[in-house]
Amino acid sequence: MYPTRLIEYEDASDEVRQVYDDIMATRKIDKVNNFWKALANHPVTLLRTWDSLKEVMSPGELDPLTKELIYIAVSVTNNCEYCIHSHTKAATKKGLSPQGFGELLAVIAMANETNRLANGYQVPVD
Amino acid sequence: MYPTRLIEYEDASDEVRQVYDDIMATRKIDKVNNFWKALANHPVTLLRTWDSLKEVMSPGELDPLTKELIYIAVSVTNNCEYCIHSHTKAATKKGLSPQGFGELLAVIAMANETNRLANGYQVPVD
Amino acid sequence: MYPTRLIEYEDASDEVRQVYDDIMATRKIDKVNNFWKALANHPVTLLRTWDSLKEVMSPGELDPLTKELIYIAVSVTNNCEYCIHSHTKAATKKGLSPQGFGELLAVIAMANETNRLANGYQVPVD
Amino acid sequence: MYPTRLIEYEDASDEVRQVYDDIMATRKIDKVNNFWKALANHPVTLLRTWDSLKEVMSPGELDPLTKELIYIAVSVTNNCEYCIHSHTKAATKKGLSPQGFGELLAVIAMANETNRLANGYQVPVD
Amino acid sequence: MYPTRLIEYEDASDEVRQVYDDIMATRKIDKVNNFWKALANHPVTLLRTWDSLKEVMSPGELDPLTKELIYIAVSVTNNCEYCIHSHTKAATKKGLSPQGFGELLAVIAMANETNRLANGYQVPVD
Amino acid sequence: MYPTRLIEYEDASDEVRQVYDDIMATRKIDKVNNFWKALANHPVTLLRTWDSLKEVMSPGELDPLTKELIYIAVSVTNNCEYCIHSHTKAATKKGLSPQGFGELLAVIAMANETNRLANGYQVPVD
Repeated sequence: MYPTRLIEYEDASDEVRQVYDDIMATRKIDKVNNFWKALANHPVTLLRTWDSLKEVMSPGELDPLTKELIYIAVSVTNNCEYCIHSHTKAATKKGLSPQGFGELLAVIAMANETNRLANGYQVPVD
Repeated sequence: MYPTRLIEYEDASDEVRQVYDDIMATRKIDKVNNFWKALANHPVTLLRTWDSLKEVMSPGELDPLTKELIYIAVSVTNNCEYCIHSHTKAATKKGLSPQGFGELLAVIAMANETNRLANGYQVPVD
Repeated sequence: MYPTRLIEYEDASDEVRQVYDDIMATRKIDKVNNFWKALANHPVTLLRTWDSLKEVMSPGELDPLTKELIYIAVSVTNNCEYCIHSHTKAATKKGLSPQGFGELLAVIAMANETNRLANGYQVPVD
Repeated sequence: MYPTRLIEYEDASDEVRQVYDDIMATRKIDKVNNFWKALANHPVTLLRTWDSLKEVMSPGELDPLTKELIYIAVSVTNNCEYCIHSHTKAATKKGLSPQGFGELLAVIAMANETNRLANGYQVPVD
Repeated sequence: MYPTRLIEYEDASDEVRQVYDDIMATRKIDKVNNFWKALANHPVTLLRTWDSLKEVMSPGELDPLTKELIYIAVSVTNNCEYCIHSHTKAATKKGLSPQGFGELLAVIAMANETNRLANGYQVPVD
Repeated sequence: MYPTRLIEYEDASDEVRQVYDDIMATRKIDKVNNFWKALANHPVTLLRTWDSLKEVMSPGELDPLTKELIYIAVSVTNNCEYCIHSHTKAATKKGLSPQGFGELLAVIAMANETNRLANGYQVPVD
């Protein structure tokens, strides 16, 4: 199945194009990322994932930048290279500065450290 | 080594008490959490971890609540039960509402999902 | 130790060649994958791993394709690029269709998502 | 936020009850699991997760039992205790025998082992 | 399948008893741990796992205590509670002191931290 | 933020140069690794991480080679490519032989396997 075929707009079915159109309109961009072009190999996953992401990442009690930082924290912990790149780019567009990025990585790294201290000492919940 | 001995203030060395005093003063609380009482079994780790955490979690470009949310994102991804409990409590004290908590978990969970879609399709970085 | 030396058949000891021969005979292929050529740097690991894999992946109550899907689920969750590639190729040879692959990734991704919802809410076992 | 409040049917809003009703009808059971009662604290997550799970776990090229096995593979790898329990129970109802369960765990465990051999030797993709 | 039935010596088949006997003789103990009693539900896994573990943990270039420390490092990183307990007990019997345990956890935790700094900055291999 | 700018000595601030000087003096090398050049983008992280690493990796009850092996065990489990490379190189300089490396990977891999058997059977602590 590799390399994954990336489905371009001009080769996409109407169903897929509708999702692409909605992504571009929602994000005010004129092309979709490789992630979506890969998911288009399984259109129900493309549609469901986009619908979910649009709902989950929309502003609520937590603002969109904070949500991107949370996304980066998960992606760095899991070491998903693609996700680290795309969400760092998104966070930058939403205002993350290089200084803020440095702080973000420091917190992520430290949390991974203290998680293991808590595991290793088998600390009982307070 | 289990169950880990939790070192209480009255049983602690002067070196450990100094750290406990600084934790309580910095956080304006009157007792330290089990995590610190466990680390006190290895005083250099206690001192170094507290110094690091104090620096990393202090306000900067990112505010303290945002830093707690990042901590929770890592802890939920790693499934560190102790850390999930203690940082959720800390975030609540800093203003996280039940609605915000629901949004936070939704983002964390979704990021773990899309990380695997990106892995599984081996999506090339844009 | 890097790049890992890949031990080719013509450079291998008799002990290693015997394993290579058994891999090729069992799988009806005429060359062994890089994974085995890397393990050959530590022949006892090569022999033990092949013996174990042959036993574990042989047909039982679960059929060989199902076992490959389980292998992919673990490898995508751990983000082992080599393993994702080799077991996807193996599953394809055993009949996994592109549609089935899309379903597989959807389940893997969703399981990673709901694992974190269960962690985050600290849901008690029913 | 802990212990998480589990929202019982009689205390649930109409919106939540509708999801509970659909879960019970779809699965032909007369009470919902704790997982759903926990998600009900954030109704949009409850609704979205149920809609997604219903779609993802429905029969396709992969049959429902195979999908449960994949779910278990992810949950064991991530060590999500709740998820291991609930999906093992679900798989048993769909026909997984104790012998099949033993084979499943053997494959999951072995995949986690060979993932690290591939990582450790930094094996290049074939 | 839960709670897992732990197969006691008196209830075990001859095949399982032989493995139990070998575990007790090799380790100079007079009862086997729960881990083996659980694996006995799938005798081929019991036999294979014990054979592998005996080979892998036997003295070589690395001494048995060092091998236990490596085991703990993996188990703490994966947060396998059972494994943390059993291998810490084994390491203690082989001479790990409380001070050494403190150093061990400090290294494990720090490695988990710097792993994420390397991921987060996407540092290229030297 | 990518590709991460690697800060060379000649472009570094005095604060960063002091850390670089200390790294080179402590390790008796004449250039610093990319890891440190990346961290220099956030000087407080550079300083704190180096101070911590120097303390954690210094000889104690555990010798420096053993500490490197533990570092590799974590890095292979997390699949941090950069960290696997740099700590394997460091361990080799401290005396790890190819045979010892083979044993190390065998233990790491096996621990990842038995961690999942313990998870999967939900084995109770002895």
